[in-house]
This record gives sequence, C-alpha cells and structure tokens, in this order.
Amino acid sequence: MSSRIGRALSIQIFGESHGSAVGVTLDGLPAGLCIDIAALEAFVQRRAARGSAIATGRRESDIPRIISGLLDNVTTGQPLTAVFENSDTHSSDYGFLPDRPRPGHADYPATIKSAGYDDLRGSGHHSGRLTLPYVFAGGVAMQLLQTIGVQIASHVLRIGGAEDTPLDALAPDMDALFAAQAQQIPTLDADAGERMYAAILHAKQEADSLGGVVEVAASGFPVGMGSPFFEGAEAVIAQHLFSIPAVKGVEFGAGFASSAMRGSEYNDPYQIRGGQVQTTKNSAGGLLGGISTGMPIIARVAFRPTPSIGKEQQTVSLGYTTNQLLTVKGRHDPCVAVRAVPVVESALALSLCELWLISRGDAPLSPQAEEL
Amino acid sequence: MSSRIGRALSIQIFGESHGSAVGVTLDGLPAGLCIDIAALEAFVQRRAARGSAIATGRRESDIPRIISGLLDNVTTGQPLTAVFENSDTHSSDYGFLPDRPRPGHADYPATIKSAGYDDLRGSGHHSGRLTLPYVFAGGVAMQLLQTIGVQIASHVLRIGGAEDTPLDALAPDMDALFAAQAQQIPTLDADAGERMYAAILHAKQEADSLGGVVEVAASGFPVGMGSPFFEGAEAVIAQHLFSIPAVKGVEFGAGFASSAMRGSEYNDPYQIRGGQVQTTKNSAGGLLGGISTGMPIIARVAFRPTPSIGKEQQTVSLGYTTNQLLTVKGRHDPCVAVRAVPVVESALALSLCELWLISRGDAPLSPQAEEL
Amino acid sequence: MSSRIGRALSIQIFGESHGSAVGVTLDGLPAGLCIDIAALEAFVQRRAARGSAIATGRRESDIPRIISGLLDNVTTGQPLTAVFENSDTHSSDYGFLPDRPRPGHADYPATIKSAGYDDLRGSGHHSGRLTLPYVFAGGVAMQLLQTIGVQIASHVLRIGGAEDTPLDALAPDMDALFAAQAQQIPTLDADAGERMYAAILHAKQEADSLGGVVEVAASGFPVGMGSPFFEGAEAVIAQHLFSIPAVKGVEFGAGFASSAMRGSEYNDPYQIRGGQVQTTKNSAGGLLGGISTGMPIIARVAFRPTPSIGKEQQTVSLGYTTNQLLTVKGRHDPCVAVRAVPVVESALALSLCELWLISRGDAPLSPQAEEL
Amino acid sequence: MSSRIGRALSIQIFGESHGSAVGVTLDGLPAGLCIDIAALEAFVQRRAARGSAIATGRRESDIPRIISGLLDNVTTGQPLTAVFENSDTHSSDYGFLPDRPRPGHADYPATIKSAGYDDLRGSGHHSGRLTLPYVFAGGVAMQLLQTIGVQIASHVLRIGGAEDTPLDALAPDMDALFAAQAQQIPTLDADAGERMYAAILHAKQEADSLGGVVEVAASGFPVGMGSPFFEGAEAVIAQHLFSIPAVKGVEFGAGFASSAMRGSEYNDPYQIRGGQVQTTKNSAGGLLGGISTGMPIIARVAFRPTPSIGKEQQTVSLGYTTNQLLTVKGRHDPCVAVRAVPVVESALALSLCELWLISRGDAPLSPQAEEL
Repeated sequence: MSSRIGRALSIQIFGESHGSAVGVTLDGLPAGLCIDIAALEAFVQRRAARGSAIATGRRESDIPRIISGLLDNVTTGQPLTAVFENSDTHSSDYGFLPDRPRPGHADYPATIKSAGYDDLRGSGHHSGRLTLPYVFAGGVAMQLLQTIGVQIASHVLRIGGAEDTPLDALAPDMDALFAAQAQQIPTLDADAGERMYAAILHAKQEADSLGGVVEVAASGFPVGMGSPFFEGAEAVIAQHLFSIPAVKGVEFGAGFASSAMRGSEYNDPYQIRGGQVQTTKNSAGGLLGGISTGMPIIARVAFRPTPSIGKEQQTVSLGYTTNQLLTVKGRHDPCVAVRAVPVVESALALSLCELWLISRGDAPLSPQAEEL
Repeated sequence: MSSRIGRALSIQIFGESHGSAVGVTLDGLPAGLCIDIAALEAFVQRRAARGSAIATGRRESDIPRIISGLLDNVTTGQPLTAVFENSDTHSSDYGFLPDRPRPGHADYPATIKSAGYDDLRGSGHHSGRLTLPYVFAGGVAMQLLQTIGVQIASHVLRIGGAEDTPLDALAPDMDALFAAQAQQIPTLDADAGERMYAAILHAKQEADSLGGVVEVAASGFPVGMGSPFFEGAEAVIAQHLFSIPAVKGVEFGAGFASSAMRGSEYNDPYQIRGGQVQTTKNSAGGLLGGISTGMPIIARVAFRPTPSIGKEQQTVSLGYTTNQLLTVKGRHDPCVAVRAVPVVESALALSLCELWLISRGDAPLSPQAEEL
Repeated sequence: MSSRIGRALSIQIFGESHGSAVGVTLDGLPAGLCIDIAALEAFVQRRAARGSAIATGRRESDIPRIISGLLDNVTTGQPLTAVFENSDTHSSDYGFLPDRPRPGHADYPATIKSAGYDDLRGSGHHSGRLTLPYVFAGGVAMQLLQTIGVQIASHVLRIGGAEDTPLDALAPDMDALFAAQAQQIPTLDADAGERMYAAILHAKQEADSLGGVVEVAASGFPVGMGSPFFEGAEAVIAQHLFSIPAVKGVEFGAGFASSAMRGSEYNDPYQIRGGQVQTTKNSAGGLLGGISTGMPIIARVAFRPTPSIGKEQQTVSLGYTTNQLLTVKGRHDPCVAVRAVPVVESALALSLCELWLISRGDAPLSPQAEEL
Repeated sequence: MSSRIGRALSIQIFGESHGSAVGVTLDGLPAGLCIDIAALEAFVQRRAARGSAIATGRRESDIPRIISGLLDNVTTGQPLTAVFENSDTHSSDYGFLPDRPRPGHADYPATIKSAGYDDLRGSGHHSGRLTLPYVFAGGVAMQLLQTIGVQIASHVLRIGGAEDTPLDALAPDMDALFAAQAQQIPTLDADAGERMYAAILHAKQEADSLGGVVEVAASGFPVGMGSPFFEGAEAVIAQHLFSIPAVKGVEFGAGFASSAMRGSEYNDPYQIRGGQVQTTKNSAGGLLGGISTGMPIIARVAFRPTPSIGKEQQTVSLGYTTNQLLTVKGRHDPCVAVRAVPVVESALALSLCELWLISRGDAPLSPQAEEL
C-alpha cells in the first residue's frame, strides 16, 4: 500500500510513467462539494510547465477523465476517480534498465525490492508523472478547503544561488503569491525568478541539474486542528511532503533556524487583537505541538537536483557485477523544484483536508467555550 | 487515533503527564523475539538524564511493568503492553491552565480543540513524558532490528553555537557513537559536548532555554526496504520524527544542502566492492525514492528551544479575553534536544521495523536475481 | 494487529488470561463525554455472572483501573486506557499445552502460527477473559450512544432446545430487555430462561457443554449512518461480532430466513408516520445496503458450545506426532452464550459508535433537505 | 473510505452503475505473480450470466482495461488498476429517484446520508455493478492463492424451496464444484439446479423475486493463518461477505446449527494421518478462534430476494412527505444469489489473501517446531 495515504480522506494513486495511464481515487470526500472543473484543470496544468525551455520535452495533454464520484460537478460522497492517459512515451530510452541503475534514482533499490519485476521504464510507478494524479487530488482538496476560507500558495525560495524574498510568516502575501504563478518561476521578487531561470538553463546546457527550495503557506486554517504525536499536523504534512519524489528536507516555521534560538526568542507571545487570540510573531509556523494555532502555516521543502543528467556517470551492471559507465538520455526537467510548486501545494492541501475531516469526526461532544 | 501509528507494527501510546501512569502497546511484533530486559531498561534510562543539572527536577523511576505479550522474555506474537507509573507530579504548578496558555506550548490550540476538556496539567497527553513509553517501544524495535544486523545510534550535532563533528555518511562510526552515550551530552567530539553543556547551563541561569540538532544513523539496514510515495522510507521515518514534541525540521542525507547542489555533485555513483553494490559516497543518506539502498541511513532533526522558561512572557486570558503576563514555573529541561537523543533513535528504530515488516509481507513471490 | 479495530474509534485490547493483567485503549473518543463510572462498572459486572452455578469458578474482581483519558470523569479526547488485574489463575491446569491441543480451541493453529511461542495458559490472549476489557470499551461506547438517544439490549434466544420469544423487529421492547438482565439468563419469557438454565446445568453435570443464540437490538440509531460495501453497517458490525470467541454465525433482520422469501414478502414498505419516514415492518433489521434506516437494528449471533469439556477427547501430541487422549480440567463456562450477552451488546455499541463517528467526519457539506 | 478494505492487500473499488465506468485498485500485491489473463477474464465472465432468462437484460462486455501494475502479465508490486466501461445504461428508468425510494434498496438511507447528493441512477455506487471490479480483484487473489495450492469454489445451496447437496465439510468435492460452473445454476445435484431455475423463472413471471443461499469452500489453505479477535479469519471473511450487496447472514462450519449442539458433538477430534495433524470431522469449518486449522474452510451466505420487483409497492415521497405507490422498472436479476456465486468466491479469495499476506509479515522470527 505504498501508494495510498489517509485515514479520513484516502488517496490512492496508480499507474506507471510508460504504462497506458495514471490516476487517482479519493475516498472519503464529503458529499455536496461543487467542483469548479475549469479551475481544477488549470491547477493541474500549472504542474505541466508547458513550452518552458527548462521543462521536460515530454508532451502530454494531462486532461483528467473523471470516472466516478461526481454528479453534475458536485461530489456524491462516493469514491472520486480520475484517469490521465499517457501518450508521449519513449520507452526505448530506458533499455539500460534494470541492469545499469541510474545514480540518484530508485532503480537499484526498486530492482532488488521487486526481484526485478518492477517496471522501470521512465521510472515506472516511481516517476514524477505520478505527481499528476496527486496534483489532481490536491486541487480537489484545495477547493474543499476554500469552502472554509483556507488559501494555499507557494513560491520558489532558492535555486542555484538565487534567493527569493522569504514569506512574512505572520501575514504571507497570498495575493502576491497567486500573481507570481504567471511567471516561468513563481517568486515574489521577479528578478530572483529570472536569475533562477538563467541558472537552470545554464546547468542544463552543461548537461547538469539543480536542486531548490519551495516555501508554502496556508492562511485561514482554523485553530485546533491536529493532535499530539502521530497525527500531529507536522507529522501528517511531512508524510505527504516526503512522499514527493526528490524531497530530502522539510521544516516548519523557523525550522532548523529555531534550533539555534533561545526560548525567549522563539516563543510566539499571545495577544488579543480584534477580540481574537493571535500571536505577535509566528516562529511556530502556525503549528504548536501538532495542532494548528489559527496563524498562517508555513513550511519549506528542500529538493535534491534531478539525478538524470547528460554527464557520464559511474554505475554497475547488476547482471554481470561489474563497474560500468552510463549516460542517461530520456527527457527530464533540469530542476524538479520548479514544477514541484503545485505538488507542494497539493501535499499541504491534502494534509489539511485530512486534519480537518478528522477534526469533524472527533469534535467535542458539547463545547463549553463559555467556561474557558 | 492521534496516538497510534503503524500499518504492520501498531504503536499505541496512552497516558497523561500528571495522570496515574503512561504506557504503550505494540501490536504486530513477530513471535520468537527474545527481549533482553536489562538492555531494554538501560535504553529507557538513557532518556532519563538522571542527576543532570540540565534536566528537569522531576524524579521518576521509569521502570516498565510489562503486562502482556512476553512469555519467559520471548515475544508471543500477541500485543505487548508496558505501563510506567507516574509518582512525582506537582499539578499545583499548572493552576494558570487552561485560562492562560503558555507561549510555544500546545495549551491554546489543545484547549480550543477539546473545548476545554483536555487535561493540561504538566502538558497532559502532550507532554514529553509520553516519549517514555515511546522509547520503550523503540527499544523493543531496536532489539528486533539487531537480529537482522541493524545498529542505530545518534549524537547531538549542534546546541547553542557549539557544533559536533558531523557523521561520516558513508561509514558512520557506530562504536564511537555508542561510547559517547556515557557523556552528559553524547557527541563525537567530547569538547563540543562540554561547550554545549555550558551553553545550556548558562541559558538556564538566565531563565531561558536552547534548541538543538540531533543527527542519527542506522547501519546494516538491507537494500530494498520501503516504497515510492506514501510509504516511502523518508515519509514513514519523518512521520515518526515529527511526532516527537519540539521537532520543527527533518532532513535526510545531504538534506537542505542538497538543494544547493548540482546533480553531478549530489548523485552517488555505484561501484562493485567485495562483490556488493555500493555507492562511493552517500548524499542520499541511504534512501533513494523512498527505498533503502543498503548504505547507512542518515537523518538530522531540529528541535526548537523549550517553551517553558522562567522569563516573564506575554499571553492572554482565554476566559476574560484580555492580555496577561505569565511566568512559567514547573520543572523543565532547558534544552529538550539532549534527552531527545534516544527518542530520535526510537523513531528511527520503529520506522525501520515498520518498513522491514511490510517488506516481509509483500516480498516478491519468486526472486529471480539471476535474471537481473 | 489482530487485537486492534476501528478507523474512527480505535480499540486495542491486550493481555493474556494468565498474565498479570488485561486491558484496552480507546483512541478517538470525542472530548466532553461524561462517564458514569458506576454504570460502567455495573455493565462490566454483567459479564461476570457472579455466583452462578453455570459460570466458571474463576473469581476476579474485574474492577477497571482507568489510567488515562478521563479528567473528573469526563473524556479529554485523548486515549482512554483501562487495566484489569488477573489474580485467580491456575496455570498448572494447562500443563498439557502446547503439546496436546484441545479440540475446538485455537491451541493447535495458534501453536503452529507462533512456532510455539504463544502463551496458551488459560488460552492466553485467545481467552474469553479478553472480552472483559472489550466489554469495558463497549460500555463506554454505549454511554456515548446514549447521548444521541441510542439504546442497546439483548437476550438469549435459544439454548439447549429452549427458545425465548423473538424480538419484535419493528418495536423491540427495550424496557423488557433491560428488566430481564436481572435474571440468571436474560430472556423475555422467564420460563424459557429457566429451561435454558436447567439444560446448561444438566449438560455440565454430564461433563458436556451447550451452544446458544443471542439476539440483540439497537433502537434510536439515526437514519443514514454507514456506507455501501466495506464500511457498510453489516460489514462493520459483523467484524465485531465474529471477533467474539465462539461465534460461528451472524444474521441481520430476517437473516437466513430472508433467503427463503420472495421480494414482495421481504421488502419493507415505507410510510409517513407522524411526519417521519418509517417502514411498516422490518425484515431488513434496520439496515439497507449497509446504511441505517432509522428503524431498530436487529441481529442474531450463534455461539458454538464450549470446547473445554470434562469428557475424554481424542487429540494428538504435536511433539511426538502420536494420537493421544485428553481430559480438560480448567474452569470453564458450560455455555458461553450466557455470559456473552453483554459482549454482544458491546460489539454492537462499538460498531455503531464507529459508524456514527465516521458519519460525523464525512457528513455532507451543505445539507439540502429542502430539495429532496 | 466505504469502498476500501484491507490492511495488507488494499482493495479500492470505484464507479457508479450509470457513470462512465467502474473499476478497482489492488495495492499490496507481491511482485512476481504471473497473471493468466484469459483465466481472469473467464472468471469475471462467470458473474455475467450471459443470455440467461433469469439475469438482467443489461448487456455489458465486462472486459477489463488493466491500466497499471502489470508488466508482461506479471505483477510489478505496484498498484494494479482495472477499469470496466459502462455502456448499456437506461438512466431514464430511475426518474422517480431520489424522491420515491424503492423499498428494500439503499435509496432512502443513502439520500439522507448524502443530503440528496448521491447518484442513485441504477443504484449508483450501491449497485451490484460494483461487484464486477470486485470480482476482478477476487480473480487476481485466486491466482495468487493458487501459487500456494489453495482452491476456492462454491455452489448454490438453496433457492425457492429447492436444496442442493451440502458440501462435505471434511473433503468438499472441488472438482465437482468446478464442473458445476457450466450449469445455469451451479449445483452439485443438477436436478436441484433445474428446480431452482424453474422457481426463479416462476417468480419472475409473477413480477417477484427470490432469495437464496450460497455455500463456498476453500481447500489447501495452510494452518496457522489468522489471529484471535479483530483480524480473526471469521471476522476478516465476514467483513468481505457482508460487503456484498444483499447478504443478510453468514455462518462458518456448523454455523447456526452449532448453537444447538453439545461440545462433545461439536468438537472436532484431532488425529495423525499420514504424519499430518488433521481433524476427523470439520464442524469448525476450518477455523478455530480466528485461525485456520488446515482443514477446508466452509461458509454459507444468505441472500435476501432482489428488492426491485414489478409488483406495485408502497413508498413515500421524500419531497412532499406523502405516501405513494411505486412500480419499479429497470432491469434486474430476479434472484441475485445466482450471479453472486463468483462474488462470494471473490470475497473468500480476497480475505484469505489478506490473511496470508499478514501472516507472511508477522511470521515468527525463528521457528522452533522441534521444541513443540
């Protein structure tokens, strides 16, 4: 069940990069959610990075066929399944697999795990192509969250030495983030985005690749969602984020920097503002002990560089137990962090949906707010 | 079910800091595991940090009462439950709760979540005290892993400006790590540990607290454990690590630093050594696409500083909707990262057990390694 | 994880018959449920069948020690754990195990399953003693259901040729069922109960045992709980009922008899009564296609006779691979169906709680009853 | 997640009767299972009951499109998804829904549950059409079980007063059951099958319907699979069986009849035969305390009659809160028990796969059979 997640909202993805199709089933969606199909398809298309010189040359329409769970564009409460056809596959590029695994890819451990039975063409089920149905699910989750006033948006914080303006943790400028989606690389500082673009192009020309950091924010998520320990908000969100291929680090709020702080510096003081409890800063990134505080949720996600590069690399022949050299062809993004932006947003959207649905189920029997 | 985790090996923790006891049930352990009770208790005691000037003044014996699942110290395959009594509680220290939530703690969101019904004395179920039964479970998992040749150890990498020697990702010195457990603060460089100790003591004297980073390694974990996506090794391990109270960041292998690398720099080349497939370096931290490579697994975990500090802080009265000042008494570690060391090891041990047990269940039907 | 159940409300039982204690953790209970401890203990005691000539001679106080999850008798929303000590154990009665398995018991398959490591003294974790913590959990669930107007009660329908008046499926007499709990054997027709009692006593005197059927009803459970297929009400309830040791058959509503009916006879016509939709009869037992209709839920549960009998039986020596004769000593109920009555009620209560909590979580976003 | 089941092998079904397609994802299949596609399609076609006068007039090709998880007809270990197109739908037959619910169907509770958003055309996701992808999954499970020597087959035991020869619980004649699949109604006694056929035809001519009982056997399932309590074999199998629409009763081995037996009559004595431990009879139906004994597994499943009948029935208008009369058109089987035969086999196959995969995962660490 590697490809299923969720206790309240179950997400099951399926498909291989060079199989006939990929898809997803969402089970646990409440009935009565009106889906804006055009907005959903537009969200899915953000992942495609069409026509960009820094994206893979593979061309797929990425139009979902929604098979079930919708009646007149409203959720029925039954499983919602969408399928995306694969059409533009070049399996001949992968003739060296599974014998000569690509460094940095799952080829070698997946071959051992499956005793050689796994389909590794185009990375098979391990491919970034599987983020397509995942983003579809994320887009549905985002529309569900919008009904309770939650917004999610992100930007590229760092690529190849270029750095964008970090988000204001207390009040991230969601409108600016939405506007930045029109750029080739979504950044708050357009110049930073252009420098990132140039750096990627440069790496690509050198048959190399780059890593990057994506920063994401959710605003409007209610206070009191989540739990201590294993269904804590950080635990649930991190499981989603680390499921994205290429992610090697995740932090919330001040994150790793908080480890160098003192408590008096880190703690977010409370205050009453407009009759509401708020914090005066947001080192916690909106999450205390696994539970949402009502302040913006802030996370940063580190992506390693794309392993498939044109440079010659050292590998082995699993069949002959000999050292070998390998030059990977195939068509790859030179920096996955760019197209990962809506994937990161989807991970956060699906996590927050899960937390919200769980909270609906185990809400207190009779609120006694007056006694607090 | 905030306090349960695991699909193959279920871990259920229970109890409150100032309730009568805390405990844990492990369900899914194979029968036939001979438990070394003395070693298990010694592992649990590592979390206690007895007699240290930098640990909480609370004194508990922390001796497990094993209720079930063992016969003559061998697992029966049935649920294994252990209970630890609470005896040294000062609930009167927490009279300000739930009305005046402590900044940086879960008090406020937990109060809203539970409509005020949660038991927040000593942080209740949210307390670090719950890491006691968790470490017990981790110790059992570690003994299971030892039967297949896996070792897990960790050290404090950074506290208060002092930095220990990082682990050698290709060949972490497990013996040195085990030896370092005798120190007040386990570090490879004993001087670094002393500087950390001094920094914590200094912060404590100023009624303040510190964060820190723990680095953990597992050696000997077999290749091919894990999956792409949601049960990927990183996703499973991260869910455990982010379940530890105070964790705000997690990274594997090169982690956040990998985001600044090029592919040619990041990728770990394969080679045949002694007839085995190995990598010549280990930026991936032993994990590629969610699956173990057979190389050491390396992770780093960022802890925020302890929120409970003696300095006066700004909070609110939830009942009166007014701003308030708060000075937290209670007994707290000035730096949770120190006592978190065996907790981090437990998180890794429980995750790897889960991955290993899942792999046993869905192993290929008829290996055909000869055909690779 | 044989001993855990539930997606919304997790129930984890633990312990062995001749271990130090047995217990249970409920995780997922909403906060704010006021537990009537006296009523809960009284419910648990109904399982004990104290002083009865037809019950086991084992004497245990069966008083729960509630370790966690309650503050001033109100649920906190955190895991609720209760432990029951074992004190009156005669392990010497089981010296023939695991070598000579008792016919009708799990001894033989459990020995093979566990490679001999399972603790089989007094049946170990397989024992009916584990229904004690289960009934505790069921009693908590029943108090939760009472807050929404649900009542659950049952009677013994058949034992040893004696048969009680079946429940009126449309309007089971809950008060009569509650009143019948005072009898040695709860029946609507007190005479039938006495005949059952005599039959059991007679079988016991002949060193033999009897089976029986328990019929259970739930009234007041709201319409619309449950789902088609795998979380259908019948599927969820049946998983609980078949988890009770000794159960070999389960049916809902007309059950097996419905298989001999015509549709025109089986179908329950709808009518409006007092502005409400009702059925004019209740062959469906309150459940249509996995979803509750709002009518009473009716189930019948078949218990096989107690396998441990005083008569000599034919078994084998697993160690010597020879045929053997066995006379079981130990202390056993000659008819488990009698003490199973509150266990059956607990199974139904826990199932309905699960269904209700799931329904809270995935309730429609914006009801449009006016449009129906 | 009403439509997902399984801890080791996850089965997710999706689709509506009058939507564009139905399908299923199996996640958790071991890699290396060679699928006989022709045999799988033939198994699926057994559910179709083509050209029979006693089956629905709806004509669908029921050919699976396998999207993922297979490479050269061998499982890869990744999710296996199959989709079946819907083509022959007459949604206009269902214009009375959701306002006037059909007695005996889920229409009314599903409408309340979903606040009217559910798609009820042709019963929507509640339809028997969803057993098509379920049977596909069952067919895959059966091929997996065949690799370990398990066979599963079933027959119709009772319909409309006609009764087939019951299975020999100790040695069910699997070959005879396989041969009987060629009949219109699979029975051991061909005459009984013809009487059943005549009874169904007669009921259909009277615009009515019939119920029935299916009996199923599995041979060759190894001893020691399953657990006490919630993952007991009976509990796991029953959850599957009660997920089949129209099932109202399930029993194992002697089942309800065992409730009228004495222990001395019910218990199955052990003996050594050919060096193996066996029982001399099989009242337990191959299952003791939730664990398989190695003897044949026997279950019986009661189906209520088809609710959709041509006779006029009494219902209500949910919109107007008035009593109404209803004559159901649509195309329906007059006795679902007939086409349910491979569905019942699928339920048993999927359950036994689940139990077997779980047992692989939690097998004892070092068997010590010599010490038994």
